[in-house]
Amino acid sequence: MPSEMESCIESLIVIFHRYAVQDGDIKTLSKKELKKLLDNELPVFTKAQNNPKLVDYIMKDLDLNKDDKLDFQEFIPLFTGLSMNCEKIYNMKQKKCKSKDQGKQ
Amino acid sequence: MPSEMESCIESLIVIFHRYAVQDGDIKTLSKKELKKLLDNELPVFTKAQNNPKLVDYIMKDLDLNKDDKLDFQEFIPLFTGLSMNCEKIYNMKQKKCKSKDQGKQ
Repeated sequence: MPSEMESCIESLIVIFHRYAVQDGDIKTLSKKELKKLLDNELPVFTKAQNNPKLVDYIMKDLDLNKDDKLDFQEFIPLFTGLSMNCEKIYNMKQKKCKSKDQGKQ
Repeated sequence: MPSEMESCIESLIVIFHRYAVQDGDIKTLSKKELKKLLDNELPVFTKAQNNPKLVDYIMKDLDLNKDDKLDFQEFIPLFTGLSMNCEKIYNMKQKKCKSKDQGKQ
């Protein structure tokens, strides 16, 4: 039975390939596949940006070899960047909860 | 309901903090906490290394500000590095399956 973190790694790979396999090269995300992934898998982030050009910006930012496709290695900084931002929010919320608890004592 | 990828991000943060909170600074992993995380959450990787000094190497490699602790930002390259290696193995296995299928036709 895989651990929770091993399951995270597995899910991340399977999700990426679920979209990458849909057209052309099965190991990379085309712009169309990236848009589907963003809309379905990162809806909160995508809606919050409220930017019709979001997919173009992300593709331009992450596509290191400029082939208009993202392989897994090029894609993963999006995941880690979001994780780090979410972790900061997590810490702020933990701090708020703590000060509320101390206020009640 | 969070998407699968959003759940991955959430799990990653919760798992990190489950270990970080155990002693001293609740936002960082001490060497002891890192060892527990590796043993419990990344057992396959940890056993495969078969190296008693593994925790020291990882701490030295990831601890950018040299405070003998890993915050989430310092920790996440371990997760992404493992994910990228696992994705390569995933691609090799997919290739093998494909050639087996073609052999049967």
